[in-house]
Amino acid sequence: MLMLQSKLFTKTRREDPKDEQAKNAKLLIRAGFINKEMAGAYDLLPLGLRVVEKIKSIVREEMEKLGSQEILMTSIQRKDVWEKTGRWSDEVVDVWFKSALQVGGEVGFGWSHEEPIGDMMRNYILSFRDLPFSVYQFQTKLRNEVRAKSGIMRGREFMMKDMYSFSLGKEDHDRFYAAAIEAYNKVFARVGIGADTFVTFAAGGAFTKFSHEFQTITEAGEDAIYLNREKNIAINEEVLNDETLASLGVKREDLEKVSTAEVGNVFNFGTEKGEALGLFFKDQSGESIPVWMGSYGIGITRLMGVLVEKFSDEKGIIWPKSVAPFDAHIIVIGGMDSEAMIAANKLTETLEARGVEILLDDREASAGEKFSDADLFGIPTRIVISPKTLEEGKLEVKDRATGEVKKISEEELVSLF
Amino acid sequence: MLMLQSKLFTKTRREDPKDEQAKNAKLLIRAGFINKEMAGAYDLLPLGLRVVEKIKSIVREEMEKLGSQEILMTSIQRKDVWEKTGRWSDEVVDVWFKSALQVGGEVGFGWSHEEPIGDMMRNYILSFRDLPFSVYQFQTKLRNEVRAKSGIMRGREFMMKDMYSFSLGKEDHDRFYAAAIEAYNKVFARVGIGADTFVTFAAGGAFTKFSHEFQTITEAGEDAIYLNREKNIAINEEVLNDETLASLGVKREDLEKVSTAEVGNVFNFGTEKGEALGLFFKDQSGESIPVWMGSYGIGITRLMGVLVEKFSDEKGIIWPKSVAPFDAHIIVIGGMDSEAMIAANKLTETLEARGVEILLDDREASAGEKFSDADLFGIPTRIVISPKTLEEGKLEVKDRATGEVKKISEEELVSLF
Repeated sequence: MLMLQSKLFTKTRREDPKDEQAKNAKLLIRAGFINKEMAGAYDLLPLGLRVVEKIKSIVREEMEKLGSQEILMTSIQRKDVWEKTGRWSDEVVDVWFKSALQVGGEVGFGWSHEEPIGDMMRNYILSFRDLPFSVYQFQTKLRNEVRAKSGIMRGREFMMKDMYSFSLGKEDHDRFYAAAIEAYNKVFARVGIGADTFVTFAAGGAFTKFSHEFQTITEAGEDAIYLNREKNIAINEEVLNDETLASLGVKREDLEKVSTAEVGNVFNFGTEKGEALGLFFKDQSGESIPVWMGSYGIGITRLMGVLVEKFSDEKGIIWPKSVAPFDAHIIVIGGMDSEAMIAANKLTETLEARGVEILLDDREASAGEKFSDADLFGIPTRIVISPKTLEEGKLEVKDRATGEVKKISEEELVSLF
Repeated sequence: MLMLQSKLFTKTRREDPKDEQAKNAKLLIRAGFINKEMAGAYDLLPLGLRVVEKIKSIVREEMEKLGSQEILMTSIQRKDVWEKTGRWSDEVVDVWFKSALQVGGEVGFGWSHEEPIGDMMRNYILSFRDLPFSVYQFQTKLRNEVRAKSGIMRGREFMMKDMYSFSLGKEDHDRFYAAAIEAYNKVFARVGIGADTFVTFAAGGAFTKFSHEFQTITEAGEDAIYLNREKNIAINEEVLNDETLASLGVKREDLEKVSTAEVGNVFNFGTEKGEALGLFFKDQSGESIPVWMGSYGIGITRLMGVLVEKFSDEKGIIWPKSVAPFDAHIIVIGGMDSEAMIAANKLTETLEARGVEILLDDREASAGEKFSDADLFGIPTRIVISPKTLEEGKLEVKDRATGEVKKISEEELVSLF
C-alpha cells in the first residue's frame, strides 16, 4: 500500500492551535491527523483514520479470539428502554443528547448501549441453549459533556469498542469476565502501553464488590490510581478505603499515586439489567431466570490520544509500529524525474510486494521541510533517498523512536520488514 | 474465514414481523440480519453487518481508484456553519435532529456533511497548488423523517458513502464528475444491479441544468423515472417537461414510467458553496477564487435493501455473490461426532485455505429446518454433507439463485471457488 504525500490534502502546521491545551490535540492537529469541529468533536483525516483503523483491527482480532460477534447498534435510542432502568432522566445521566421526533415523542443519542442491547436480546435469548455468548461493536458515542479540554481523550463524540456478555449465571459470567480481562491486556500490550497499563479496582455494583478499569500512566490523564508496583495492584480513588486495602492485602503507605487515563473498563451487572429490562431465559426445568450481563469498553479514539501523550517528543509523534499510519516514510530529495525519484519508485515496488505500507514524500519541498514533517508524523522508519545516498550506494534509514540513523544497503533494509 | 452457525446468536423467524410493510425489512428481520430499534432505525447483526462491509469494500475500492481519500467527519455539527448557507432553519431543512449543548448553544446531528466539509477545507485549501482532490467517508446520517415505512430503504439513521470534490474550475470539476459517474456505474454493476440502474437527469442548481441520480428499477422504490431504454435516457419526474425533452432529444410518448429507488446521486455546486462558506484559493496571480465543489452519495444500507427487494423469492433472500455474507453454506446432516461432521470439517479446511468464506451449519436441528434457514439466508452456494452423500462419495451442491442441484466430487466443488 502506497500513498503519495503530494496527493494528501492535509497540511502540517508549525504553530500549536491556540484553542487547545492538550498535547494530543495539538500534535494531531499540527500533523493533520484530525480536524477540530468544536471542543470534544474531531474529524478523522486520512492519516488519523488509518491509525484508528489499525487500533480497531487489533481490538477486533482479540475480540474475535474471545468468540465475540461483531454487530452495529443504532445511535438513535428509545426513551421507553432507558426508562426501564431509570436512566432516561437527565438528573440520573447528565450527558444525554436528546431530540424531539417530528412524528411525536423523543429519541436519545447513544452515550452507551447497555440498555438497548439488553432490550434487543429479548428477541434472541429464549432458552438456556442460547447462552452464553457475547457481541461487540465499534460505535460512535455522543455525550453532552460540560468539560471537553483533553483533546481526543474526552469527547462529545468519540469511537468506542463496547462488548456485552450474556451468561447463564455467575460461574459462566466469571469465566468470560476473566477471559475479557486477558484479551484487554493483550490489546494494550499490542498497542504499546502494556507496561504502563494497570487493571485497577474500581467501584462495583449490586453484584460485585469491584469493577475493573484499565488505567494507563500519563500526566495528561484525568484520573489517578494508587499503585503497588511490586504486587501489581492498582486501586481507583473512589474505592480507596480501609476495607478495600484490607481485602487486597496492601497498606496505604505502600501505594504510589499516579496520574492515569482510563483506556478500558469491565463491569459485571449480574442479573440487575436483565431483571430491569425483562431479559430472561428458560432453564431446563422451564423456569424463567434473568440473564447475567457484563459490559466491556475500550475507548478507541481516547487510546489514540493516550498514545500521542506517551509517545511523542518536541519534534512530533512517535507511533508504536503496530498502529502507525504507515510502516515506512520514504523521503525523496530530488524532483519528479530525478534519479532519486526513480530509485524511490523502485524501492517502493520492492517493499510493497512484501506488504510494507509506505508514505512516499514526493513533494517539491525543501529537505528541511520534509524532515520536519516526517518527525511530526512519527512513522517508525524514515528512509532518505538523495543524490548523496545514491552516490554512496546506501540508503539512510532513521528510527523515529531511537533517533538512530544508519546507512544500509537496500537488501539490509528490505530484511528489516 | 469460518463461522459456526451453532454459535450465531441470531435466530430466524418463520413469521413476518407485524409492524413492517417492506419486503426488505421483513426478510432481513426474519433472517436475523437486522433488528428494529424503531421505524427507520435498524441494528446491523452479524450477518447483516457482513453484507454492509462487503458493499463498503466494493465502494471503497472504486473510490480509491478515483484517487479519493477516506476520512470520517463528526456527526455533531455547528450551527454557525449551516447558517452561512441558510440551511440551519427547520423551515429550509425539514429533517434536522438538534440538541442543546449543556455549555450553551445548540448542535445539529449530520443529515448531510456538505457544509461542514466545505468549512473544514478552509484549513487545507489555500492555493491553486492544493487542488484538485476529493475525499469520501462512510458515515451514519441522522434524519428526522416523518415517513419511514420502506424498511432500511429510508431511515432515520442510515449509512451513506458521501464523497466531495474540490476543483479549480469548471473544466477540472467536469473531469472528476464524469469519472465519478463511471465509478458509480462500476459499483452498481459489481453489486449486481448494473442492468437495472440508470443515470437519471434530475434537478440541477445555479451552475448546472441537471444533477444526476442513479435510479434502480424496483417496485419497492419511492421514486419513478421516465425511461427510454433504446437511447439509455432516464428522466426524473421533477424535470420532466418540454424543455428537458427537447434538450435530450426524446419524445414523451417514447418514455416508459417505472418505479425506482435512488441508490446514488451526484451534484455540482459550482462555486455556490465555496462562496457561501468562504472557501477560496489563490490563483497564480494571487487572486482569490471560490473553489468548485461537487457532492456524490451512495446509500449503503439503502443499497442493501434494494438488493433484497430485487433478489429474493418466497423462500428468502438471494444475495449476489459479491455481497453475500459468506461464499458457501455447508449444511451437515448428523451430530457433532458423526462422519458427516468430520467430512464437513475436512472440506471446510480445504475451502478456507483457498480463501472461501464459510458458514457451517453444525446445529442440532432437523434437515428441514436447516434447508429452510439456508434458503432464507440466501448464501449463493449450499453444500450438503449427509450419510447419503458420504455413501455416494459426492457432495450435494445447490445454487441458491437458479435452484439447480448437482452431485459433484470434492475436487469439482473446490474448483468452483
